[in-house]
Amino acid sequence: MIIPDVGAAVALARVEIDVRWRDLDAFNHVNNSVFLTYLEEARLHWLAGIGGAWIDAERAPVIAATQVDYRAQIGWPGRVVVTLSCLRVGTSSLTIGHRIGSADDALLHSEGHVVLVWIDPRNGRPVALPDAVRVACEPGARVVETRHRG
Amino acid sequence: MIIPDVGAAVALARVEIDVRWRDLDAFNHVNNSVFLTYLEEARLHWLAGIGGAWIDAERAPVIAATQVDYRAQIGWPGRVVVTLSCLRVGTSSLTIGHRIGSADDALLHSEGHVVLVWIDPRNGRPVALPDAVRVACEPGARVVETRHRG
Amino acid sequence: MIIPDVGAAVALARVEIDVRWRDLDAFNHVNNSVFLTYLEEARLHWLAGIGGAWIDAERAPVIAATQVDYRAQIGWPGRVVVTLSCLRVGTSSLTIGHRIGSADDALLHSEGHVVLVWIDPRNGRPVALPDAVRVACEPGARVVETRHRG
Amino acid sequence: MIIPDVGAAVALARVEIDVRWRDLDAFNHVNNSVFLTYLEEARLHWLAGIGGAWIDAERAPVIAATQVDYRAQIGWPGRVVVTLSCLRVGTSSLTIGHRIGSADDALLHSEGHVVLVWIDPRNGRPVALPDAVRVACEPGARVVETRHRG
Repeated sequence: MIIPDVGAAVALARVEIDVRWRDLDAFNHVNNSVFLTYLEEARLHWLAGIGGAWIDAERAPVIAATQVDYRAQIGWPGRVVVTLSCLRVGTSSLTIGHRIGSADDALLHSEGHVVLVWIDPRNGRPVALPDAVRVACEPGARVVETRHRG
Repeated sequence: MIIPDVGAAVALARVEIDVRWRDLDAFNHVNNSVFLTYLEEARLHWLAGIGGAWIDAERAPVIAATQVDYRAQIGWPGRVVVTLSCLRVGTSSLTIGHRIGSADDALLHSEGHVVLVWIDPRNGRPVALPDAVRVACEPGARVVETRHRG
Repeated sequence: MIIPDVGAAVALARVEIDVRWRDLDAFNHVNNSVFLTYLEEARLHWLAGIGGAWIDAERAPVIAATQVDYRAQIGWPGRVVVTLSCLRVGTSSLTIGHRIGSADDALLHSEGHVVLVWIDPRNGRPVALPDAVRVACEPGARVVETRHRG
Repeated sequence: MIIPDVGAAVALARVEIDVRWRDLDAFNHVNNSVFLTYLEEARLHWLAGIGGAWIDAERAPVIAATQVDYRAQIGWPGRVVVTLSCLRVGTSSLTIGHRIGSADDALLHSEGHVVLVWIDPRNGRPVALPDAVRVACEPGARVVETRHRG
């Protein structure tokens, strides 16, 4: 797997997610597609938390690519931690690295990256990344965290 | 809606659940089917928390009926609280009342009841309720709680 | 279970749905919440097929209540048939009876009813049923069918 | 994206899937995670159709990696066609190329690949690919097709 230079990764978010029993499939572990739902949940908490405009009538993010390497199964009950980092900032796109780990950080469940592209929803054409998003990806930007203290 | 005598309801569980963005449908509120997933999550936390055998190779619960009255839409982000109570204990079955409220208890999202029946998985026939389940439904039984302190 | 007079039921739709493996849960049968997804799919095919306006900026249906009696488990692979009938037409609401059967009609998987209410999405207040919906529920109305010939 | 030599791809399966309304998310198009559910459905129909043992108590496939490039949104109602091909056969693993197209083949919704590894479920260690799977990936093998004639 060729991925962008992770050395330059900027931490974006750390989001805790409770596993639901319905996330399991007939093999009794969290279904492969649900990993993308966990990533989506973390990504939207990140965007909602950057404190600036990231979506409006003229620009919205769409997913251009997802890549996941599955390392260890996830069971129920449990809680996972999704960690997002910025791997690459383009003119219209963003490559976000992701890791899903156990809540105690002892286990890595998956890692990979997702490419987002901002488009004009009216015509589907790429537009410039919103400033707030670009700034939120700069080194030193605040890491968005959702935390369960329970 | 004719439901069993709620005056006799015994509190069973209070489970907090984080709404996920994927729970929304194209109408931008939590899809009606996901309410059943919230109820299932709470029910399994209750059963896992009663401290006794509720499932084994000879007996397992299946769902005989679900009934939900939808009162107020659920949005994202958010957290809901599922409250379960025992409405009726039968020979093989259990009628569980449910309410889904907002985390601050200000809003009632739904209420209704679910009927569980314990069966022998090998032949599908009803079997007696496990003792641990019967005891967990008696007045004064411990209420199972999962709580987010965040 | 007290339900409206089924004798007066008007057939509305017969929709075939392929079971997906992801519909199964860790007990290896279709999860209870997915039955509501099957009903929703059939209901929307019915509404899309009545040939008249059933949703616009001033009126849209929401689900007020769902009730399902589960009769026989559903496995994978398989195909089910959802049959919808009109049990009651109110000023703003519609009570729709439902049955989910096997594709060969040999097995009844579930039955019950769902109550829909048309509201004004701008303020949440009930509005009159759209004429096209009312007409589609009259005896003799065309039954919407989606069929797999495979 | 570095992927195995597609020139050597062997056609495995062509599976038609009906889009469900619940597959949509709040952006009103099929959610990115559901693409993996479509791929899973096609993959399991393929395995179920190869006419030989692909899973038992001593060996079962798990997903090691998924990669999807999203090309065009999917709406409801609709039907898609998932096409699977074999890109690489390893000792324990299989790399399967996938394309999701519209039912009329006019539109490519996504493409990518998935890596499966056969393991011993008792200890999680890789085992040799089942013979039936290896044979089903050889050039000239029968293509598994599910078809809706409707």
